[in-house]
Amino acid sequence: MGKYDALADLLLEVIREGGGGGRKKDANLVPVGISNRHIHLSQPDLDTLFGAGYQLTKTKDLSQPMQYACKETLIIGGPKGAIEKVRILGPVRNETQVEILQTDCFKLGIIAPVRLSGDLQGTPGITLIGPKGSIYLSKGLMIAQRHIHMTPEDATRFGVIDGEQISIQIDGLRGGTYANVAIRANTVSALECHIDTEEANAMNLTANSQITIIK
Amino acid sequence: MGKYDALADLLLEVIREGGGGGRKKDANLVPVGISNRHIHLSQPDLDTLFGAGYQLTKTKDLSQPMQYACKETLIIGGPKGAIEKVRILGPVRNETQVEILQTDCFKLGIIAPVRLSGDLQGTPGITLIGPKGSIYLSKGLMIAQRHIHMTPEDATRFGVIDGEQISIQIDGLRGGTYANVAIRANTVSALECHIDTEEANAMNLTANSQITIIK
Repeated sequence: MGKYDALADLLLEVIREGGGGGRKKDANLVPVGISNRHIHLSQPDLDTLFGAGYQLTKTKDLSQPMQYACKETLIIGGPKGAIEKVRILGPVRNETQVEILQTDCFKLGIIAPVRLSGDLQGTPGITLIGPKGSIYLSKGLMIAQRHIHMTPEDATRFGVIDGEQISIQIDGLRGGTYANVAIRANTVSALECHIDTEEANAMNLTANSQITIIK
Repeated sequence: MGKYDALADLLLEVIREGGGGGRKKDANLVPVGISNRHIHLSQPDLDTLFGAGYQLTKTKDLSQPMQYACKETLIIGGPKGAIEKVRILGPVRNETQVEILQTDCFKLGIIAPVRLSGDLQGTPGITLIGPKGSIYLSKGLMIAQRHIHMTPEDATRFGVIDGEQISIQIDGLRGGTYANVAIRANTVSALECHIDTEEANAMNLTANSQITIIK
């Protein structure tokens, strides 16, 4: 190993350890939440798919305050194929949004962009099939960009701000780093790093894992 | 941003650029090969599953010399479920080996370790079902550890050795780094970084992508 590589390795090691007066690594640990493909519905779309005035049935609270998994599922379909039993998450939102995995794009025959939740402009559409009707959404299909929910107090503690994009480090044989993880800091969030099942599997992360913010 | 962070960022930037006399980043580019779940069979197991003296039918050459995808597929099964149409790769090997995705572990009900190809000791077994018979393998199930095939000349050029574990960098919105990528350098290899479909999807890599060795 040449002098340059030796220097580079040593510098990286020191930086990862946080330096003498820097952050402690443990202080930057964040629990992981793993999302499979799922759907957020508007009330008008819920009415069309399940019948007028339909109310979603909560089966499990999610870690984010007020958010829950529902008993109800839908079939989603594109020009090449369909996927059954896609879970609906509640409560209803202003706009319907369908978050899928990269692998689902091949099955459906639709290329979905990587987007932050709520950023629907220019996203492709998809067909939703429910027990009482179906809808062709003109937009709303995306692969969720990885992000970390936190309170403003958490953000201060981590030295980050809402909207910032940071990197996260994952330890272990299948470890590494994910770049461009968006910080979503507000007063109705609980601290959790949201990734999808493919991102979790690629780094061997489970619901009990923690990641480290490395900026 | 404090002085420590500013210093850390600058150092990382300089290191990534390879320094004044260091490696140029472009010189470390490696094409990507993406593997779905697949099976390598021994001739005795091929005989049991397809009939005595059976020969595999090549449908497509793979990028590694002498390796090919076959027309033949198998069903693989565990205590919780089965997966159909798992592709066999040829030619036959000394030992049968089944490489699956992390997501398949949930479906099959078997926890498979991350291993390098050929390192079968202590791996779990799985049932293989073919048109003429079935086998309960006592070992051979794994999730492939990501690795880079290359010639000894490539290894010299990259400054790595066979068996070394390096990191790779992936650019783009879904970019990041994967650690513990094993170097497999020998005279019968073509330069290619092998990852599985979940690792590819998590970083938005395709068959046309390239990654950068960053050590």
